[in-house]
Amino acid sequence: MMLNKDFLNRKEKAINSLEKAKNESKADEKILPILNILNNSEEYFTSSSCSGRIVLLEIPEIGDKKNAKFLGIWHRCIEFDEIITASKKAKKGQIWLLAQSPIIHIVSANLQAADKIIKIANASGFKNSGIKSINKKIMCEICSTERLDAPVGRNRNLFCDKEYLQLLVNISNDIIDRSTKKLLRLEQKLKKYLSTHKTTNQ
Amino acid sequence: MMLNKDFLNRKEKAINSLEKAKNESKADEKILPILNILNNSEEYFTSSSCSGRIVLLEIPEIGDKKNAKFLGIWHRCIEFDEIITASKKAKKGQIWLLAQSPIIHIVSANLQAADKIIKIANASGFKNSGIKSINKKIMCEICSTERLDAPVGRNRNLFCDKEYLQLLVNISNDIIDRSTKKLLRLEQKLKKYLSTHKTTNQ
Repeated sequence: MMLNKDFLNRKEKAINSLEKAKNESKADEKILPILNILNNSEEYFTSSSCSGRIVLLEIPEIGDKKNAKFLGIWHRCIEFDEIITASKKAKKGQIWLLAQSPIIHIVSANLQAADKIIKIANASGFKNSGIKSINKKIMCEICSTERLDAPVGRNRNLFCDKEYLQLLVNISNDIIDRSTKKLLRLEQKLKKYLSTHKTTNQ
Repeated sequence: MMLNKDFLNRKEKAINSLEKAKNESKADEKILPILNILNNSEEYFTSSSCSGRIVLLEIPEIGDKKNAKFLGIWHRCIEFDEIITASKKAKKGQIWLLAQSPIIHIVSANLQAADKIIKIANASGFKNSGIKSINKKIMCEICSTERLDAPVGRNRNLFCDKEYLQLLVNISNDIIDRSTKKLLRLEQKLKKYLSTHKTTNQ
């Protein structure tokens, strides 16, 4: 298979910036095995990713992501008190608790490979995956449907009662646990596919 | 442009089933102008859609959509009391309130047209749009990022206090209002594009 020069240039840059992040310990450890498998393949490279996270977010109004402020970000299960501590950084606007499942952006060398990666993602439980654009580069997005998006406070105050907030924390932690399991499933399926898949000269 | 026979056959079937839904008043009125524009074009047809909705859902556990049960579905803004009434149908499991922005599934005749529709969707504020598969047919999904996914009860009981539930209802209604505006923006952009876009023979 002929890979075009533009793809290889972009791939080199993406891998260099991932290596830099690894050296600075800024890379998301839990998702690294998957990034390595994809970046070691011929047909793909990864451009950004997140292994799933819990976020405490302050937003002036719904949809206004530009002016949103992170009060806390955790790529792991959390304790109730961490939310309380993080909420003390709040100033003005609504406070939301979000639990987000993993997201991986993958550039694919061709459309067949893009279609294949979306199929593998779906089979691993990432049911919200798709190709985001096919213009200058073929950009695939792997993501899942589990999430929690709940308002928990306003203007510095958490307005949920303790019991309800604890439930939200439990559900968020549940989403993180499920994410970790799905990532392992994806890793296994990718390993299997990329080890048996012979790239042919086209 | 040559349209393949398979695309035209599928399009005919999809339009027939939409006509049937219209006759039975089962079609989602708010999104019909957009469906009509797309289905009157050469390069697209719609296969399913929702104009945005508020849902009260009962689920045995998170992610278990298969066994989820709708306690209430509204394609419009709602009143507080409607949630209370709908919650009385609950039996067992978690009760979630969801507010979902619009979703439209569009089959495209070719990849260039698919890329174009995703660009128009993004420019209209539907920032979570993408191509879902390119295998037998090219399936595009138009959707947005605003949503609310919050647990509100368990085993027949709403455990949120009244004030908090009212806030969730207000936010849900806000998402519906924003959805309506985005659909109008999309309608205008689609009209403009499809009226100036000349299909060339390829």
